[in-house]
Amino acid sequence: MAQQQSRPIRAGILGATGTVGQRFIVLLSQNPCFEIHTLGASERSSGKKYSEASNWKISDALPLDIAQLEVKSCHPEHFGGCDVIFSGLDASVAGDIEKSFFESGFPVFSNAKNYRMVPNVPLIVPTVNTEHMAVVAEQQKSLTKTKGFIVTNSNCSVSGVAVVLKAIQSRFGKIDSVLLTTMQAISGAGYPGVASLDIMDNVVPYISGEEEKIEIELLKILGSTNQENTGFDTQPDLKVSASCNRVPVIDGHTASVSIKFAQNPPSLEEIKSCLREYECEAQKLGCHSAPKVAIHVTELPDRPQPRLDRMNDNGMAATVGRIRVCPVFDVKFTVLVHNTVLGAAGASILNAEAAFKKGLFQL
Amino acid sequence: MAQQQSRPIRAGILGATGTVGQRFIVLLSQNPCFEIHTLGASERSSGKKYSEASNWKISDALPLDIAQLEVKSCHPEHFGGCDVIFSGLDASVAGDIEKSFFESGFPVFSNAKNYRMVPNVPLIVPTVNTEHMAVVAEQQKSLTKTKGFIVTNSNCSVSGVAVVLKAIQSRFGKIDSVLLTTMQAISGAGYPGVASLDIMDNVVPYISGEEEKIEIELLKILGSTNQENTGFDTQPDLKVSASCNRVPVIDGHTASVSIKFAQNPPSLEEIKSCLREYECEAQKLGCHSAPKVAIHVTELPDRPQPRLDRMNDNGMAATVGRIRVCPVFDVKFTVLVHNTVLGAAGASILNAEAAFKKGLFQL
Amino acid sequence: MAQQQSRPIRAGILGATGTVGQRFIVLLSQNPCFEIHTLGASERSSGKKYSEASNWKISDALPLDIAQLEVKSCHPEHFGGCDVIFSGLDASVAGDIEKSFFESGFPVFSNAKNYRMVPNVPLIVPTVNTEHMAVVAEQQKSLTKTKGFIVTNSNCSVSGVAVVLKAIQSRFGKIDSVLLTTMQAISGAGYPGVASLDIMDNVVPYISGEEEKIEIELLKILGSTNQENTGFDTQPDLKVSASCNRVPVIDGHTASVSIKFAQNPPSLEEIKSCLREYECEAQKLGCHSAPKVAIHVTELPDRPQPRLDRMNDNGMAATVGRIRVCPVFDVKFTVLVHNTVLGAAGASILNAEAAFKKGLFQL
Amino acid sequence: MAQQQSRPIRAGILGATGTVGQRFIVLLSQNPCFEIHTLGASERSSGKKYSEASNWKISDALPLDIAQLEVKSCHPEHFGGCDVIFSGLDASVAGDIEKSFFESGFPVFSNAKNYRMVPNVPLIVPTVNTEHMAVVAEQQKSLTKTKGFIVTNSNCSVSGVAVVLKAIQSRFGKIDSVLLTTMQAISGAGYPGVASLDIMDNVVPYISGEEEKIEIELLKILGSTNQENTGFDTQPDLKVSASCNRVPVIDGHTASVSIKFAQNPPSLEEIKSCLREYECEAQKLGCHSAPKVAIHVTELPDRPQPRLDRMNDNGMAATVGRIRVCPVFDVKFTVLVHNTVLGAAGASILNAEAAFKKGLFQL
Repeated sequence: MAQQQSRPIRAGILGATGTVGQRFIVLLSQNPCFEIHTLGASERSSGKKYSEASNWKISDALPLDIAQLEVKSCHPEHFGGCDVIFSGLDASVAGDIEKSFFESGFPVFSNAKNYRMVPNVPLIVPTVNTEHMAVVAEQQKSLTKTKGFIVTNSNCSVSGVAVVLKAIQSRFGKIDSVLLTTMQAISGAGYPGVASLDIMDNVVPYISGEEEKIEIELLKILGSTNQENTGFDTQPDLKVSASCNRVPVIDGHTASVSIKFAQNPPSLEEIKSCLREYECEAQKLGCHSAPKVAIHVTELPDRPQPRLDRMNDNGMAATVGRIRVCPVFDVKFTVLVHNTVLGAAGASILNAEAAFKKGLFQL
Repeated sequence: MAQQQSRPIRAGILGATGTVGQRFIVLLSQNPCFEIHTLGASERSSGKKYSEASNWKISDALPLDIAQLEVKSCHPEHFGGCDVIFSGLDASVAGDIEKSFFESGFPVFSNAKNYRMVPNVPLIVPTVNTEHMAVVAEQQKSLTKTKGFIVTNSNCSVSGVAVVLKAIQSRFGKIDSVLLTTMQAISGAGYPGVASLDIMDNVVPYISGEEEKIEIELLKILGSTNQENTGFDTQPDLKVSASCNRVPVIDGHTASVSIKFAQNPPSLEEIKSCLREYECEAQKLGCHSAPKVAIHVTELPDRPQPRLDRMNDNGMAATVGRIRVCPVFDVKFTVLVHNTVLGAAGASILNAEAAFKKGLFQL
Repeated sequence: MAQQQSRPIRAGILGATGTVGQRFIVLLSQNPCFEIHTLGASERSSGKKYSEASNWKISDALPLDIAQLEVKSCHPEHFGGCDVIFSGLDASVAGDIEKSFFESGFPVFSNAKNYRMVPNVPLIVPTVNTEHMAVVAEQQKSLTKTKGFIVTNSNCSVSGVAVVLKAIQSRFGKIDSVLLTTMQAISGAGYPGVASLDIMDNVVPYISGEEEKIEIELLKILGSTNQENTGFDTQPDLKVSASCNRVPVIDGHTASVSIKFAQNPPSLEEIKSCLREYECEAQKLGCHSAPKVAIHVTELPDRPQPRLDRMNDNGMAATVGRIRVCPVFDVKFTVLVHNTVLGAAGASILNAEAAFKKGLFQL
Repeated sequence: MAQQQSRPIRAGILGATGTVGQRFIVLLSQNPCFEIHTLGASERSSGKKYSEASNWKISDALPLDIAQLEVKSCHPEHFGGCDVIFSGLDASVAGDIEKSFFESGFPVFSNAKNYRMVPNVPLIVPTVNTEHMAVVAEQQKSLTKTKGFIVTNSNCSVSGVAVVLKAIQSRFGKIDSVLLTTMQAISGAGYPGVASLDIMDNVVPYISGEEEKIEIELLKILGSTNQENTGFDTQPDLKVSASCNRVPVIDGHTASVSIKFAQNPPSLEEIKSCLREYECEAQKLGCHSAPKVAIHVTELPDRPQPRLDRMNDNGMAATVGRIRVCPVFDVKFTVLVHNTVLGAAGASILNAEAAFKKGLFQL
């Protein structure tokens, strides 16, 4: 039975002036389950009003009350009133800072890569594997302030394909091989990120570290907790090969994916039904940010397209189209995900909602 | 021993006002082997000066003498002075018109898809399989005017991957499977072609008929002439799966490609050497338009990129980068080709140069 | 005293499958004052379900109930249940069709240019001159079915500058000269509209008829009704020069504007205050779609920008920035307007809301 | 009588790894009048091979011999063999470094802004006012090594409008007022320069310092040397107002310009003839890089366009179109210039060619 809220969850945001931090602000300020309580950024920004410390780059207007908030440095003592911490920190600083919040007893929902592959840290796409949160108890064994834990969400390009593979494997059994080519949006690189001279009238066939992240993170996300809930068993025998490209798109990562089943493949119609009917734990828990439909399946011949489909279900759904036979593997399709919503800040938020519903922290 | 030229080859261009036709004009007017003799277009344009009939969309300036030429309708009687015919016609009209020129005794080098898969018509990427021209004699058996023949060039997205696969198979033996995802330029769709509202800040994961063309044409291009040179044996046992996407790039088709060898794969270094050393018949014949290096291999981590690499060797080379191990197949890499040069008009022109060198027509 | 609504206004949409028609559907379906009742399009579409007749190109999802509606041909007999008609018709057919609805007694709110300059037809930017609706009584004198009338809204590029000039002249007296250069979005040209090959990495310094429309329409919008309310007195002695450019922007027309006052100019601070305080009749009437703030004034040095500011007040506000001294004229500034909202469909809708509040039609 | 060359001019390039420096390399390596002798960059780059020190971002291939050159730090002692110095240095360091080369006796052709407005330093658009070089003798009075001098070229957005105004004023007398709005390419901001998130689907109506530069530099360029050739008289009574915008274009600055004559204006046809017939000193001197036609006049209704016209005369010509009556001033038109060729590196090179022809330095 899901835990009920008596009041909004008070949220602190680390890295609040950056790209992910700005997205956290937009999403949390529109979410009745949360109240933005404290904004943290680098020493350079601390003490300034948020509107002066940040260079707002999102088309949704900066809420006026947030604009007036004083930015704090990222030390736990400034975040005393917060129930949860969202981290949009850069990997170069996320390690130490997130650890200090964890040790100070905060539930930390992190978008950074630093702890994703740590054995007792869940790596969660919220429409895939919130069940993995069972492992946070293991993290807390070592702590004095027993409430603290860290939950990470995945690399932005993993989330879309992860939810599709999860849905398919849940019904049809193991997939043997996945070959995917991504066409990723510029917002995935943060701000200033990709120079315009590098991407206008261009494709850049390389994103540092991205292919490795997909190939590794996917196995953990699609794996399961071990029997004692002290760690994770990655999915064995799943071969993944990713080729990552940057394209001139603002938001929305698209991937062309081919998959081969370990056993006899289902029919295309069976796959479509399976995807349409897929329901994740976050939906069953009634989480506010959970998409109504976790996987949108389109039959239009030229969809999904990032500009038209990235905001499906407020950016929390994956959209799949062009499901067809693959002449080399079994099935191929195109999947799209909003990289800064389900692929980043939105995932952290839905993870936090699910963690609360599951009773991992109280108000 | 290659035939020598006594004077420029006089060229007629069918579909001269279209996108491919304009590219023919630019390339031929810069090529000392040719002289543009007659321009053909639809009845609507015939009788007009070329500068009035066409809507020039290429950054290279329209040569002044060409601007003044009177456009003819596409009937063989208007092309009497021409040695060869280049066709940039749309598939909807190319069938009948090209046939009429063929039957009137003209060598026709066609960029249209209509005759590509006809059993006795060569389908040629000029840096891959000019040897297939041996079959034109078979075409001429049925003709009164025995000089006529048709040579086609491939779909624009096939040419880049074809030359790479050809080079690899020539040295290392059969490839078993090819999985490729293309990111294709808007110029591939002609003019007006892709609406700006469809492609700005967007990817369109579908190009009508394109995946089928790649999957079929590749087998013919990589195949061989049969023993009697009356037709072609497609490459057997090669499985190809293509996923085609349109991206906001003006010129240059990029593809992420994974390949699996039938036998033990060579090392990455062996593949790089093989590609660097690859030399095609058109190069050996000394054709003017042949690239100095048919396959440019780059070691830079983020290349090839369409904006920076599409004009390598004047657009007649394929550029390959990111050659690396594929965790699912054996090897993966990125290949780039200029879709309106090696992928279209440039291919027809180099095919014509090779055909002349081989003595298939005289001046 | 504004007329109150007893039920939603039933709306018919002409040209429902086009770009403006699609925007009408999005805006009306989110507007509680209206109910979409009938969709009209060309004979070719009539009888089909809307989802089959249209090629939906807007990122907001097509409402499911609208998708199921049967499209009608644009004849008044099919629109019996409608209280008002919105026309997104192309100018080539708008003339006759809109007239037939007018003569059949329908209030027609048209986005087409056909009747804009007709002496007894109001040309209205809803945040500028809804007072001009007083003239519709003159239209009705000639009618049997006395309820019909036509109200037009302006060219998309006029609306932004019109509201700014209106605000300034209301407080500071006549402007003598206006010189403006527009940078207009591709959506202003409809679909398929601008070819991607024409606009990627490019500026097109010409939009057919656009400069003339700005130079003429502005004088009517900023003018007044004549004493008898039978027509309009255009603003005399206002000189306007427009240079119109198409730029690679999806939505949002930006203009660099310089103005010279007839008398001594106000200070920059006076102008900013004036713009911030400006309130139009539609706001005073309490119209649902009226912007909270008709003119957003930004002090940020590099704003307004179309991607970040076009949706201010749901696209119904103009945003002005960079208000500074002009070394040649008196003052210069940048103004931005969402061309398909305040500049097109949104204007028609707010005009209809104002007309109802003012009692020009009943339910 | 123009000085003749006995051998190529040996060129040193300061700031060789930057955007302007890369353009210098491309242009000089294709120019038979010059030989690239020494490449200078920051201490960080010095000692490295150029190919390792630079991040090549131009589609023209980096010449192989240049790729192998060892980069030097920007001290005059490393440039002993050079006849001239081209500076593509950033303004933050250009002041001291250029001065040290000047004092060491080098002719310095600088693209930086530091010395543009210094009284005895010529500010030259090479197709406008190479006559201003007469003032360099004044610079040399203070020097021991009397050969040194500094010639600067203008801000990239000034050059196009300067050549048009020069041509018009030379024939028709003084212009009273100029109002112009620019739409500038991203390459004008260097690399990394404009972030892609700032410019995709966007216009930025602000470029720091740019409007002031246009308003001030234009008066010096269109002015004349004083009677004693010790400095410059700026053009009096010319009022200039510029509004500068950044647009998603890679190369080529477009401007919409309105002008008012001090006296009766000429006819449009007279202006067109005047522009077509305009010939500058660099052309008369027979300089290699001088455009054949300094001002291209187009009658096509929708030109000039950056993508199609920026390379006219190898990027050294300005292209003017849409010459028409201005309802507020006298005449309006659109002018386009390649910002990194005539607007930057190309200008420095043509200035150096003219300086040599005029005998300002010897080999």
